[in-house]
Amino acid sequence: MHTQLDCIPCLLRQALEAIRRLTGDEETHARLMRDLLRHLGELDMTRPPPVMGQHLHRLIRRLLADDDPYRAVKDQFNRYALALYPSLKRRIDESADPFDTALRLALAGNTIDFAALGGVTESAVRVVIERALSRPLIGAVDGLQQRIDEAGRILYLADNAGEIVFDRLFIERLPRDRVTLAVRGRPVINDATLDDAEAAGLTGLVEVIDNGSDAPGTILEDCSPGFRRRFDEADLILAKGMGNFETLSAVDGRRICFLLMAKCPLVAQHIGCAEGDFVVVSPDRVQAECQGQA
Amino acid sequence: MHTQLDCIPCLLRQALEAIRRLTGDEETHARLMRDLLRHLGELDMTRPPPVMGQHLHRLIRRLLADDDPYRAVKDQFNRYALALYPSLKRRIDESADPFDTALRLALAGNTIDFAALGGVTESAVRVVIERALSRPLIGAVDGLQQRIDEAGRILYLADNAGEIVFDRLFIERLPRDRVTLAVRGRPVINDATLDDAEAAGLTGLVEVIDNGSDAPGTILEDCSPGFRRRFDEADLILAKGMGNFETLSAVDGRRICFLLMAKCPLVAQHIGCAEGDFVVVSPDRVQAECQGQA
Repeated sequence: MHTQLDCIPCLLRQALEAIRRLTGDEETHARLMRDLLRHLGELDMTRPPPVMGQHLHRLIRRLLADDDPYRAVKDQFNRYALALYPSLKRRIDESADPFDTALRLALAGNTIDFAALGGVTESAVRVVIERALSRPLIGAVDGLQQRIDEAGRILYLADNAGEIVFDRLFIERLPRDRVTLAVRGRPVINDATLDDAEAAGLTGLVEVIDNGSDAPGTILEDCSPGFRRRFDEADLILAKGMGNFETLSAVDGRRICFLLMAKCPLVAQHIGCAEGDFVVVSPDRVQAECQGQA
Repeated sequence: MHTQLDCIPCLLRQALEAIRRLTGDEETHARLMRDLLRHLGELDMTRPPPVMGQHLHRLIRRLLADDDPYRAVKDQFNRYALALYPSLKRRIDESADPFDTALRLALAGNTIDFAALGGVTESAVRVVIERALSRPLIGAVDGLQQRIDEAGRILYLADNAGEIVFDRLFIERLPRDRVTLAVRGRPVINDATLDDAEAAGLTGLVEVIDNGSDAPGTILEDCSPGFRRRFDEADLILAKGMGNFETLSAVDGRRICFLLMAKCPLVAQHIGCAEGDFVVVSPDRVQAECQGQA
């Protein structure tokens, strides 16, 4: 998905929210905005929006001299999601359709997003959980179970810390011996890395790899050769979140299924859903989109 | 009022709304954003926000090769406000406090803003009129009539086309022989110029001058010597709208009274009111603010 002109004011707003959350130093706020404006003036709009996000958060880490400024936020939401885990697991086990309930919870977890939403509170997560459990899901939900059953190698692309505990609830319903979970290669925003997969208890459950990149999405040319091999070999790729959608929606759609909460009007428009919808974007649909738009 | 970092994403959003309203050519949209980003990277944040607006709309006029791209919008809202004029005048005449009703209508007219609000519809104007007539006004409303009675020379700084017809309803309640109305010197957004003062029937009612500038506010150093002399000589300056507030809130507060609808969270915060409030910002209050913030 190309970067749209609308992404530019949105990214600058996100940048300001992010830097103010991380430091009260106003000179740093101003320096970040100036550096980012200069960069955006030279932007290649044919690249997907997470390329801007990657640059922004490299700038932030450099200005703060902090390799992982969201570490505390990630820890907080891992802990919070782990505290919810037993009761959520019980709700799955006791539901009429445990696969569907687990899928809904994985989609709800996608609200733990410090990029598009600028932050989230624990009480807001609770509200989203109930919404995801009660609202109709949008997209290719029905065929998903069968695709999973038929796939030899499944690659699951995680999105955020905290959310990854919700992913665990869903992954526990998948054929674990055929699932590889991939996280980001280095910290960026509150995206999940190996530390978070471990904190969520996923390293003991399925194979976990990292993608070698610090982009808040999956920019294949920026990922490690090892990750790209796994990506190429997978029969089914379950890609969580908007960053993965924006970077992969034009890539070999038949094998990829996107699971996300639509948190941006342009992504919602691209998918053909409403903002706030919980969406399973089917490969066929993405393929049609790729032919039309990418 | 200094430009805030929050003004930057907001201006870029305004720029995109403006250029899309004026042309469907996507290459022009992209070129405007690129040029603006480069400019904003070098921005002097100690200047008020209308300095950015002035630059943006010079860029737009140059890219479109059109000296007055909002002419049709200005004509539309002049016509619309003139169509409402007889019934609004009747409401003033029949009200318990004609001065207060006329003031409220002048404040309601400030909603006809194609900068902060990106545009307005005729039906939205109707809604705002009723709101302005029914909601409490905020600020130094009580002393205003007395200040006007005591002032020898009153300079009324207009804001937008269409709105200027609402200003006429208020100006008709002022001592006309002591009032000079000032409009922008050249077209910028939908701000009122001499053509609009004439269309609104104001040129036959009070003395009308222009300020020599194409800023969407009153940047004194950018105004003509003739206007600045009038500004210096005035005993009371009634300044309409946020652009005039942002550019003049730090200038000799004792003589200036700002009449505006608060359409931006930062201006509302600066004034100490809520977004959407209709406000009369008293000189004393502004003076206190100037000492604290400007």
